[in-house]
Amino acid sequence: MGVNPKAMASIHIALIHHPVLNKAGEQICSSLTNLDIHDIARLALFYGVANYWIVHPQPEQQKLLTTILDFWTTSKDLPYNPSRSEALGLIKHTHNFDSLIDNITTQEATRPTIITTTARTMPKQISFHDLKALHQSPRPLLLVFGTAYGLDDEIHTRADHILAPLTGAGDYNHLSVRSAVAVILDRVTSG
Amino acid sequence: MGVNPKAMASIHIALIHHPVLNKAGEQICSSLTNLDIHDIARLALFYGVANYWIVHPQPEQQKLLTTILDFWTTSKDLPYNPSRSEALGLIKHTHNFDSLIDNITTQEATRPTIITTTARTMPKQISFHDLKALHQSPRPLLLVFGTAYGLDDEIHTRADHILAPLTGAGDYNHLSVRSAVAVILDRVTSG
Repeated sequence: MGVNPKAMASIHIALIHHPVLNKAGEQICSSLTNLDIHDIARLALFYGVANYWIVHPQPEQQKLLTTILDFWTTSKDLPYNPSRSEALGLIKHTHNFDSLIDNITTQEATRPTIITTTARTMPKQISFHDLKALHQSPRPLLLVFGTAYGLDDEIHTRADHILAPLTGAGDYNHLSVRSAVAVILDRVTSG
Repeated sequence: MGVNPKAMASIHIALIHHPVLNKAGEQICSSLTNLDIHDIARLALFYGVANYWIVHPQPEQQKLLTTILDFWTTSKDLPYNPSRSEALGLIKHTHNFDSLIDNITTQEATRPTIITTTARTMPKQISFHDLKALHQSPRPLLLVFGTAYGLDDEIHTRADHILAPLTGAGDYNHLSVRSAVAVILDRVTSG
């Protein structure tokens, strides 16, 4: 972990549950979603991500997460799906954004370049081409994703760069965060 | 629907619940998964897919699907999330592979090029480059995805082409079908 097999910058991804927005644009705290844990951990293993960080402020939700992770990574009764255990073994968790950055900085011995993601068009967003160029540098990348209706601006103001939204054939750009992680990791790591 | 806004071949996607494989390689019928319905419908709308076909042989599961789709597409009490209704409005369903092909052939007035997907390496698979070339032709494409541990060979033998598996940085290639649909649609429709 922490070493990218392609010898480019290591990539960390983070899923934020607070502060995020609801449909009305109000700041909320979202609940854990089980398939966000599994689908995104499998993507992390597939694309050689160093760690998948789940950020949640509430002790009860952290406890729930610990129970799920312990089941999949340390239970002796799990010969059935060892690769799922390997995927969920990439998950680390912490309670807020400051702690997230501190943890990755300690682990990597350097502060990562922080890239936030959004479905909105915002000023000064970088392109996927720019993101691939950042991935060529030795500095680790942290890609930050929001649950619910996306990251609060409080998180975007902490970023070094905000990634331009994914666009498809139509006007609709409200993919699930699971799908957004899939497409963004594929684009940043592909030839 | 049925008209691709980029004037290339229209794309249909299908999610097969029978015949698919379990971990032991035995033929099974899988159950509907609610997030397969929602995540993949949102991807279909995002990437301009003509229709998302859910194929299930069992009347009780079809009835469940109809109830879910009716709730999201025709309920009068759903001002909250109109774009979700639009996404789920792309879903059609049928009971087996023959009926799937017949329905698309009638709708498009021509038989689609059938492309099956798999996480396995198999003989004579086409590349993503080949798939993009097929998308330039006027003939509609049907991309076929399997639930559980993937499509039974019975479905692959019906295909015009089998797509090469996605590969990432490591040996692990067991993405969720939701993630595989995201990445494959992004690759086939991107610049």
